[in-house]
Amino acid sequence: MDSSNSATSPEISKPKIVAGAGGYVLEDVPHLSDYIPDLTCHPNPLQDNPAYSVVKQYFVHADDTVPQKVVVHKDSPRGIHFRRAGPRQRVYFDSDEVHACIVTCGGLCPGLNTVIREIVCGLYHMYGVKKVEGIDGGYRGFYAKNTVHLDPKVVNDIHKRGGTILGTSRGGHDTSKIVDSIQDRGFNQVYIIGGDGTQRGASVIFEEIRRRGLKVSVAGIPKTIDNDIPVIDKSFGFDTAVEEAQRAINAAHVEADSIENGIGLVKLMGRYSGFIAMYATLASRDVDCCLIPESPFYLEGTGGLFEYIESRLKENGHMVIVIAEGAGQELLSESIQSMTEKDASGNKLLKDVGLWISQRIKDYFAKERKMPINLKYIDPTYMIRAVPSNASDNVYCTLLAQSAVHGAMAGYTGFTSGLVNGRQTYIPFNRITEKQNKVVITDRMWARLLSSTNQPTFWIPKVPIGDKGNEEEATELLENGICGEEGPRFS
Amino acid sequence: MDSSNSATSPEISKPKIVAGAGGYVLEDVPHLSDYIPDLTCHPNPLQDNPAYSVVKQYFVHADDTVPQKVVVHKDSPRGIHFRRAGPRQRVYFDSDEVHACIVTCGGLCPGLNTVIREIVCGLYHMYGVKKVEGIDGGYRGFYAKNTVHLDPKVVNDIHKRGGTILGTSRGGHDTSKIVDSIQDRGFNQVYIIGGDGTQRGASVIFEEIRRRGLKVSVAGIPKTIDNDIPVIDKSFGFDTAVEEAQRAINAAHVEADSIENGIGLVKLMGRYSGFIAMYATLASRDVDCCLIPESPFYLEGTGGLFEYIESRLKENGHMVIVIAEGAGQELLSESIQSMTEKDASGNKLLKDVGLWISQRIKDYFAKERKMPINLKYIDPTYMIRAVPSNASDNVYCTLLAQSAVHGAMAGYTGFTSGLVNGRQTYIPFNRITEKQNKVVITDRMWARLLSSTNQPTFWIPKVPIGDKGNEEEATELLENGICGEEGPRFS
Amino acid sequence: MDSSNSATSPEISKPKIVAGAGGYVLEDVPHLSDYIPDLTCHPNPLQDNPAYSVVKQYFVHADDTVPQKVVVHKDSPRGIHFRRAGPRQRVYFDSDEVHACIVTCGGLCPGLNTVIREIVCGLYHMYGVKKVEGIDGGYRGFYAKNTVHLDPKVVNDIHKRGGTILGTSRGGHDTSKIVDSIQDRGFNQVYIIGGDGTQRGASVIFEEIRRRGLKVSVAGIPKTIDNDIPVIDKSFGFDTAVEEAQRAINAAHVEADSIENGIGLVKLMGRYSGFIAMYATLASRDVDCCLIPESPFYLEGTGGLFEYIESRLKENGHMVIVIAEGAGQELLSESIQSMTEKDASGNKLLKDVGLWISQRIKDYFAKERKMPINLKYIDPTYMIRAVPSNASDNVYCTLLAQSAVHGAMAGYTGFTSGLVNGRQTYIPFNRITEKQNKVVITDRMWARLLSSTNQPTFWIPKVPIGDKGNEEEATELLENGICGEEGPRFS
Amino acid sequence: MDSSNSATSPEISKPKIVAGAGGYVLEDVPHLSDYIPDLTCHPNPLQDNPAYSVVKQYFVHADDTVPQKVVVHKDSPRGIHFRRAGPRQRVYFDSDEVHACIVTCGGLCPGLNTVIREIVCGLYHMYGVKKVEGIDGGYRGFYAKNTVHLDPKVVNDIHKRGGTILGTSRGGHDTSKIVDSIQDRGFNQVYIIGGDGTQRGASVIFEEIRRRGLKVSVAGIPKTIDNDIPVIDKSFGFDTAVEEAQRAINAAHVEADSIENGIGLVKLMGRYSGFIAMYATLASRDVDCCLIPESPFYLEGTGGLFEYIESRLKENGHMVIVIAEGAGQELLSESIQSMTEKDASGNKLLKDVGLWISQRIKDYFAKERKMPINLKYIDPTYMIRAVPSNASDNVYCTLLAQSAVHGAMAGYTGFTSGLVNGRQTYIPFNRITEKQNKVVITDRMWARLLSSTNQPTFWIPKVPIGDKGNEEEATELLENGICGEEGPRFS
Repeated sequence: MDSSNSATSPEISKPKIVAGAGGYVLEDVPHLSDYIPDLTCHPNPLQDNPAYSVVKQYFVHADDTVPQKVVVHKDSPRGIHFRRAGPRQRVYFDSDEVHACIVTCGGLCPGLNTVIREIVCGLYHMYGVKKVEGIDGGYRGFYAKNTVHLDPKVVNDIHKRGGTILGTSRGGHDTSKIVDSIQDRGFNQVYIIGGDGTQRGASVIFEEIRRRGLKVSVAGIPKTIDNDIPVIDKSFGFDTAVEEAQRAINAAHVEADSIENGIGLVKLMGRYSGFIAMYATLASRDVDCCLIPESPFYLEGTGGLFEYIESRLKENGHMVIVIAEGAGQELLSESIQSMTEKDASGNKLLKDVGLWISQRIKDYFAKERKMPINLKYIDPTYMIRAVPSNASDNVYCTLLAQSAVHGAMAGYTGFTSGLVNGRQTYIPFNRITEKQNKVVITDRMWARLLSSTNQPTFWIPKVPIGDKGNEEEATELLENGICGEEGPRFS
Repeated sequence: MDSSNSATSPEISKPKIVAGAGGYVLEDVPHLSDYIPDLTCHPNPLQDNPAYSVVKQYFVHADDTVPQKVVVHKDSPRGIHFRRAGPRQRVYFDSDEVHACIVTCGGLCPGLNTVIREIVCGLYHMYGVKKVEGIDGGYRGFYAKNTVHLDPKVVNDIHKRGGTILGTSRGGHDTSKIVDSIQDRGFNQVYIIGGDGTQRGASVIFEEIRRRGLKVSVAGIPKTIDNDIPVIDKSFGFDTAVEEAQRAINAAHVEADSIENGIGLVKLMGRYSGFIAMYATLASRDVDCCLIPESPFYLEGTGGLFEYIESRLKENGHMVIVIAEGAGQELLSESIQSMTEKDASGNKLLKDVGLWISQRIKDYFAKERKMPINLKYIDPTYMIRAVPSNASDNVYCTLLAQSAVHGAMAGYTGFTSGLVNGRQTYIPFNRITEKQNKVVITDRMWARLLSSTNQPTFWIPKVPIGDKGNEEEATELLENGICGEEGPRFS
Repeated sequence: MDSSNSATSPEISKPKIVAGAGGYVLEDVPHLSDYIPDLTCHPNPLQDNPAYSVVKQYFVHADDTVPQKVVVHKDSPRGIHFRRAGPRQRVYFDSDEVHACIVTCGGLCPGLNTVIREIVCGLYHMYGVKKVEGIDGGYRGFYAKNTVHLDPKVVNDIHKRGGTILGTSRGGHDTSKIVDSIQDRGFNQVYIIGGDGTQRGASVIFEEIRRRGLKVSVAGIPKTIDNDIPVIDKSFGFDTAVEEAQRAINAAHVEADSIENGIGLVKLMGRYSGFIAMYATLASRDVDCCLIPESPFYLEGTGGLFEYIESRLKENGHMVIVIAEGAGQELLSESIQSMTEKDASGNKLLKDVGLWISQRIKDYFAKERKMPINLKYIDPTYMIRAVPSNASDNVYCTLLAQSAVHGAMAGYTGFTSGLVNGRQTYIPFNRITEKQNKVVITDRMWARLLSSTNQPTFWIPKVPIGDKGNEEEATELLENGICGEEGPRFS
Repeated sequence: MDSSNSATSPEISKPKIVAGAGGYVLEDVPHLSDYIPDLTCHPNPLQDNPAYSVVKQYFVHADDTVPQKVVVHKDSPRGIHFRRAGPRQRVYFDSDEVHACIVTCGGLCPGLNTVIREIVCGLYHMYGVKKVEGIDGGYRGFYAKNTVHLDPKVVNDIHKRGGTILGTSRGGHDTSKIVDSIQDRGFNQVYIIGGDGTQRGASVIFEEIRRRGLKVSVAGIPKTIDNDIPVIDKSFGFDTAVEEAQRAINAAHVEADSIENGIGLVKLMGRYSGFIAMYATLASRDVDCCLIPESPFYLEGTGGLFEYIESRLKENGHMVIVIAEGAGQELLSESIQSMTEKDASGNKLLKDVGLWISQRIKDYFAKERKMPINLKYIDPTYMIRAVPSNASDNVYCTLLAQSAVHGAMAGYTGFTSGLVNGRQTYIPFNRITEKQNKVVITDRMWARLLSSTNQPTFWIPKVPIGDKGNEEEATELLENGICGEEGPRFS
């Protein structure tokens, strides 16, 4: 990125914070008018749309905000709020003037095509915008590829297919080239769908656009099948993923149950957070052990995984284990480092925690216990990622896309569209990218899981956390994740 | 509350309202200690449960509440709150003392078996409660049938099946007989799963139990596939129903699309509210017209349904219509009244709005327009109701059930367990039963639907609602449903 | 149809019958060279196709035939045979010369799009044929509509969708106009996909083409979701339909099982034959009674349906009934005739046997028995017809389509492509259209069903059929259907 | 096994071959009366079963047989036949006398539970047999475990679950111990469900029982998800497996299609035969390359796999590969042998052809071609094996089970029940176990596949097989598999 900047415009825009009475705080999102003076605005064309024109309340009130924290006390401070998403009475783009583009980055996630579809249809049907283009194959498509024309006809059936019609890739983020391309091609609304890395990229693109003083709205739509984006209730595609994961768990259960000492092992997505594993386990009720990155575990000795496996097999004859792809990474690295340097390509495979732990379990019972077990390993990752979004995610994607469109039309920029406590909001990039959402293992949802699987905690703190003398330590632990009281929905 | 009873105790208990600063209001739920003096309480046995014992924060803070309204302004009053659900430090039942029963009433809904399973498993695994019985076949089972023994083994796989293993029925509510039975059989926790009628019944049972001064907790779990229960974000089974409805809409689309002037007509559940129809339409994107009870429509003349059908067929060659079972009831009654008295049993069938409107459309195009159309009518109602709950609903049912169990153990009574803005809460019966949740047709979700289908509004108010001179009228209209800003999730 | 014919060509071509030793009979199909002298033929271009060129045996031996009857005795005559389908060493069309068209007629059936796809891809990839057109909307599309260009790209994904991309209709058969159109547009291969009426139409088209002496191959692909086409093992889409019907039966079972005296009633396709009902019943094992057109039944009195329902409800608490749409037509007509003439439109609905019998059952138990029952009626017809074909049907459709293509290229005409005893064959039109396949209720498959449901036979012949003195009567009865020994697969 | 045998009874019973006119051959199955003189027989109790009693034809005629070969010529010899399955007029067991047992062996396969259910229900409902026991966990369960009581109530819903309720295992076959157990426990009908190894075991058990002169019928039901059992049309569960494999292929296609140079690689079952891979490929139409054990291939050089991959990626941007687990075993062994001895456990994983070939493809394009590719590997094996059987397989399993029951009751023994050209037959063990069914790569079905994928043959014989001078060589090749004309259904 070009690091030169004018004296008047700081490299990074400052957060827009508005305070109110009773501890009320609004973390607002940037607006084009923040750095472009004398912008003209227009009445929202939705006023003439028969579907919307009936009621004036249709437009979001300028002061509508949504609190981040909804578990409150009688006298607790009101805390952080976000701006409510939705159509505004006035827009900062003329429909004919809009030239939008959409890009999808990172791994596949159910719902990508629905989001694309609804941005295109939302722009077209709600605002009469005709010029929408798709960027091919992720960020690098901005400068290395042709764009793809998008209109309601092209996108009509795409929500029934998995994947992304625009193609995707990892990396390829080159701020100057991308903003050059945006400027050269004349895009003035940029919709960026991707995970936290992608949103960080979007943030940088926004800063550069702001630095150049361009009238271009940058709207992010957070995508992560792992559900590890903070602040928002859940990410799109997550519901579908948890649903689809049930097939794998069911199969593991059937396999394990049909053979003596059968172990069904399912690896699910979640490099840094175990939400899919946790919810899939809670939804299934057939799982005896769920291992996630947030909850350290150990294999051998008292209270270890092997001991638990053995006790379950003795008691029940079979068991089902769900492991998130990022679980047990410390154990895995140790294991791999202990291998000789000469090891051939096969060892690469052991970097897959599912294959690695399968091997360890098999070895342990074969060598240490001389106990015949039958382990069946299932990795449904790509079968889950590639399904089309279910009905619930379809509606959710629609609302995310429409919120983004309303926000961009209203001149907001540098924001992501996200659901907070059941309401569509605009959230500043930094709140989305500054940390990752994690399962809080001192929270009730994880306790529910432990209670449902009956697995050991694998983790015995010397002094119970939360105990009188220990408030700070506990808080520290909680800070690593999101606050225990504010987990993603259903707490 | 006055703990003396008989002459001094009013028939209906008064709402427990607590006010605070900044307009904070807590609508609290009854507690056994409200009318039974000197109850002993015990430490929560969860403290010794390895899954829960790690953190003290596991227990819900006594002051935790959740606001009903989350779209707020900087200086808006804090409004109504509900008590947060979850385990309490102290319980009012000894585990050995508990004798629980579960009853399911009304029509089928995906998730009933999951709720039953999780009440049984929650009581057993979390609190060590062994005595749980199922009431057979709804309310009348209390006095007319044998009970069914329930334990974790019996309910182990039931969440994978549709329906309810306890059986269900409508009606059969006889307060005295039921409370006699509760008293005679020694039940002290009564879990009642059912719709608004059932919850009203639960409320009456609670009042009678309170009048008799019994130590019996009455916990409701609201069930309605129509999603028409107020206050809560959504009812369990709703997600599954919307998902399953997609099959019918897809089929209607294929049928309509494969033939000239093809019309696919799908009737979905929703006697008084059109939530399933609305969400199924939004999720599908293949629907050209969605008719719900809340939005009046007419058939003939300019702006009527027939005109719209004709224009869609001319333009597109086919169309898909979704109709909620309660839509167009006024038209239907008129139609049926105009028939001669002599009409035979066949006419009963026309009380089914799907069959009736099919006939009307066919007749109109055959007789009035001499235009051949091909209408295919699909009624997937029972195929939707009978599926097992999907993963999302499974998790939701688990949390509702566990919340109810925690509440009953903690001595709360006369409450329903419900999700409010993504948090589990305890809600007083009267808030659940006093009105029905309805689609607010002046709200954004319905506008989204209209925009997605492009159907006419069928409804042209002389003066735009919400216009300056008209605030009250608009408010009145909004009051018919829930407040426009507080629709069920995703607003 | 023009009834004048040239002296040399008879109105209807005679069957081509070839006899051999041991009672061997070949019922052969017509060939273009039968009425066009001096046709040139070419080496099959598949010889140069890398996929096919490896082995010469790839081509079907000129003498390959398949027997209709495979249950034989040591000394039984060899009986009727059909010509084996498949590529021939020599073809009668030059690839560049071929101008093919495809038409789909009648109701929807899973697999239509797969058949279309595979005819197009087969012609293109196997024979290098580029000119293929789709007739829009059934027979009438030949003369009343534009055609649709078809190539592998257009049809690439259509097999994943239900319905037919070409559209369909009933009727519209006008021989002269159709053959005029074929002649005018220069089609020389006509692929006709449809039921027995459609195949009868195809036969007439073939006769007219033959009369006019045109070099046009007419190939039929029999379509009937009811599986009521004789000779062939089963029709495409049947497997998918039986599979999809399970959903409805499962739902009916859940509904019935969850309520006292619950009756789940499912209507399945089958106007004249009960194959779908029978196989769906056999596959499900949850059905207590299966009613089909071939097996007369009565409602009242000893051994009647009402009595059976009552006994099942008393014994089991609930029951599931499957009824084919064509079952009980005599009862239905009686019932309807007994209504007064003045009855309004509602009575039309009672022509639907599912609605009618629901009403009758409800009335009987309400009025005659004063016994409360809960009947849930499910009609999944359009939900079944509209699904895409399953894997098994996809493979089957591929083979049917390829067989048709090979046959037409080889100069055969006036044939349908069909599976006989697991082998692809060419069958003369008359054998397909002369009668309908029916469930033989004196056959083992129906006995299996009766044994699985335990329903009464509803039918007590005075003298057991097949008894010594009764051979002829029994035979007569069997003749109504297909021969008891030659039912569709699995006998 | 005890190898001593009496002088009068040979170790292995001789095949029962009956010859007739016109080249007719019947390969008959053993009967208890072959080695037990003076057996009493009884009228079949089905004669009194209302479901079956109506028609005498219900019973299979004593002379009914089914030809193995149905593609015939006018003057071809009639060839091998098998005895038709079904109920006989006379049975050799009194219902009260029967003590049946059922065992399932080997890997999971959809339909196992349905077969178990239908043996139990068939014995019970058709023949009034009440004593049926399940052997727990495969062959070793005969002597090392308790048996499980089976009746219609126990098995009522098991067909809706995957796996086997009896449990299964590999190996454990100890003839003496098993036959001792059969004798000691008094079983007189033994139903053995399993693959070719299991059937070979069943054959040995039968021989030992015959040697001991016991009145015990041994009936096999062949189980192999790979469909590699000869003679029969297809094995149960195969249809379901092919259907379920579509999910994995679809996912691979979506993944590949959404990224530049995307390769979706799916491993399917088939250690020695590629039927699942072939049919799944034919059903999907999204596959660009299908690799099976029967068709050797090579990776590098002209006409090799790498070259083909590169050309497909250049042409189409992505590709989907299906590989059977037993494909490329020679390449795999070479590869693994070339690794150093020191390689750690990771290399074991490379014995999985899917992981191995993924690695090879990645390495090749990274190192040799410096071409970035994105390979996604999916192994759905256990997710496929564990699903419940679909409707078609349910019916098939029912018929196989009932045929086995009819056969055992009629005194036949040492047979397997199997579908031959669409008819249920009894086949002697040796015909089922003497070789494996394989995809004939010189047959039309494989040609169809090649034509559908456009993949290279990887195999260029110097002289075209089947060419004049080469008849014998070609025949030899064909002999390796089953005869080209007699592939499993649909040829």
